[in-house]
Amino acid sequence: MGPGPVNAHPRVLRAMSADLLGQFDPEMTAYMNEVMALYRPIFGTDNRWTFLVDGTARAGIEAALVSLVAPGETVLVVNFGRFGLLLTEILGRIGARIETVEAPWGQVVPLDAIEDTLKRVRPTLVATIHGDTSTTMAQPLEGFGALCRRYGALSYVDATATIGGMELAADRWQVDIVTGGLQKCLGGPSGSAPITVSEAAAERIFARRHVERGIAREDIDDGDGPRIGSNYFDLAMVMDYWSDKRLNHHTEATTMLYGARECARIALQEGLARRYARHRAAGRAVTAGARALGLEVFGDDAHRMSNVTGLVIPAGFDGEAVRRAMREDFEIEIGTAFGPLQGKVWRIGAMGYNAAKHKVLITLGALETVLRLQGFACTPGAAIDAALAAWNAEVAA
Amino acid sequence: MGPGPVNAHPRVLRAMSADLLGQFDPEMTAYMNEVMALYRPIFGTDNRWTFLVDGTARAGIEAALVSLVAPGETVLVVNFGRFGLLLTEILGRIGARIETVEAPWGQVVPLDAIEDTLKRVRPTLVATIHGDTSTTMAQPLEGFGALCRRYGALSYVDATATIGGMELAADRWQVDIVTGGLQKCLGGPSGSAPITVSEAAAERIFARRHVERGIAREDIDDGDGPRIGSNYFDLAMVMDYWSDKRLNHHTEATTMLYGARECARIALQEGLARRYARHRAAGRAVTAGARALGLEVFGDDAHRMSNVTGLVIPAGFDGEAVRRAMREDFEIEIGTAFGPLQGKVWRIGAMGYNAAKHKVLITLGALETVLRLQGFACTPGAAIDAALAAWNAEVAA
Repeated sequence: MGPGPVNAHPRVLRAMSADLLGQFDPEMTAYMNEVMALYRPIFGTDNRWTFLVDGTARAGIEAALVSLVAPGETVLVVNFGRFGLLLTEILGRIGARIETVEAPWGQVVPLDAIEDTLKRVRPTLVATIHGDTSTTMAQPLEGFGALCRRYGALSYVDATATIGGMELAADRWQVDIVTGGLQKCLGGPSGSAPITVSEAAAERIFARRHVERGIAREDIDDGDGPRIGSNYFDLAMVMDYWSDKRLNHHTEATTMLYGARECARIALQEGLARRYARHRAAGRAVTAGARALGLEVFGDDAHRMSNVTGLVIPAGFDGEAVRRAMREDFEIEIGTAFGPLQGKVWRIGAMGYNAAKHKVLITLGALETVLRLQGFACTPGAAIDAALAAWNAEVAA
Repeated sequence: MGPGPVNAHPRVLRAMSADLLGQFDPEMTAYMNEVMALYRPIFGTDNRWTFLVDGTARAGIEAALVSLVAPGETVLVVNFGRFGLLLTEILGRIGARIETVEAPWGQVVPLDAIEDTLKRVRPTLVATIHGDTSTTMAQPLEGFGALCRRYGALSYVDATATIGGMELAADRWQVDIVTGGLQKCLGGPSGSAPITVSEAAAERIFARRHVERGIAREDIDDGDGPRIGSNYFDLAMVMDYWSDKRLNHHTEATTMLYGARECARIALQEGLARRYARHRAAGRAVTAGARALGLEVFGDDAHRMSNVTGLVIPAGFDGEAVRRAMREDFEIEIGTAFGPLQGKVWRIGAMGYNAAKHKVLITLGALETVLRLQGFACTPGAAIDAALAAWNAEVAA
């Protein structure tokens, strides 16, 4: 019950034990096409270019940024936590000029602050995080992509921590690239990064296409733009691989693809609206339970992620001792925190397969017991009662 | 029965259906340490830094090169096929000055040709492929690393196509970095890249350590060297993640790690010497069978990979029609070829779980039937008889 990776859905694990296929076997390429179709509704898009990057969620981020941004270009990063910092780190290595617009940890960046900065710095790309688990905040994105377009910039959103748990609406937001991962609300293992790319972003990327010499073909022309700085993360070649051209780039990670496919099938079978409501109920239940226990909940209520909640460690208590007892006595893992929140906040996730009523109730009950045994004053049972009521109220709403 | 990916070992598939663990759970970090120990004998090394890169084999190659080579440095590529070209492609994007020493497809590069070029170009790194499946040739590596060291260069070998099937001897060869993949002779899925790094290479990489700001810690110092051009492939951070420091870099691809662990356990339980002999027997059987069938075997006999064999498509026959009939009538996939060999050569793999006597015999029998039905003149049964005799002779030797 940490901020991810979480327990995988048993169906995902079973799907991953299917035998491999040759990468150009028609059965395999049919699975690839099916994966593209399955992830479009999950990203809230009709984008043709919706596929997988073979690596962890961080690989998807780097692939998006290195393929879009040439050295020397200006990128505006909307930064409100550790993963905003990660964007600046990756962009720095690409050789981009980086500008930021920031919010303190526990808050989000208002759209008009983004606009003010856009006017000033005129970036070619604006990059942000949807839900930053380091602070448990979700950046509002209605109007975000349209705003960027008004100032001539493409937009990028990392949705690793929200995909499959909070609504993604790439088309309505008019965001050009969104990336994710399986290991949080999609209930799968880390190691595959779903991505969606708009026509405008694909055009910019294909303008940088330089097919490697060993696999060059007469039917694929190079572009005039600067060559992409990575071979593995060259989305021009990766998109040619996922297209009918079937350019022989990397060898698709078949087992991870089976897992990604099953994650999406499960999400769509549940129904995305019901799934988001389930995560919302879980988040409300954790928040209500923690408050009934007498704990302070970290950050701005209005912009809280539904799938991970920060609880302020009460003064005088050893956060690590509590986490250890949770793990050793109850086999439940809850998260620590990074940077300015290290030692000050626990993070409780309720993601994917773990966003279940009984798991939230059991976790709060265990936390109450552990805290009580370490001398924390609270009313036994109050947390579970409040969480149950909050869950039921959210589902009824 | 192509040049990989191949069928996975059933035990590997079962291992990958185990549930996930939190990435800093002591059970998970114990698995990570176990993986490091398991891969040392497979690489033929005592290197402390033996671990996994989360991505396909190509990710391991890029991680090694981008972490070792700073822009402007000179790298000598020993090139004898498509994957040598891939090394030059990746290095070009890194901004390296690239020199090559080449052999025609179907041959390898003599050590004295490498030495002649070393004298002239004085690179900081020499990079090559062990077995290049595009040509089915294996570059001899006895003395290779020592030669590079005499001229002040580190050395890098990609062993994706040979790891677990032909002997790797990183320490005896004195090679500084060797990378691999699971999807060939290790009998696992693509998506995890085992790597081993010598102390000298690790020192060079740690001199370039620049921990990302969001996870910087007082106990980890940055180096003076130029920052590594990729975040995801920054082996300084990845090694800190695999060390007791447990730097929170990417989220380890748990399921792929379970698979990589089981691949190595199976290989070590079989015994590496026996395993290499099994692959050698398979290669001899394919070669003998093909010749008995009346086909020409591509390339230099003295430097043939044991686990993939090139067969020259007989004049007047449609290579793709034969591959299609193999797949449709017998459910057996054999490989096509790239670049100068496209349309001229089939490639038959016998790797990992597929390097089995019955699979080789069945494949040759199927190929004989398909060719005969398409009008190829041959003696029915001769290929299987010759293959069986060659297998048994190799095992008896």
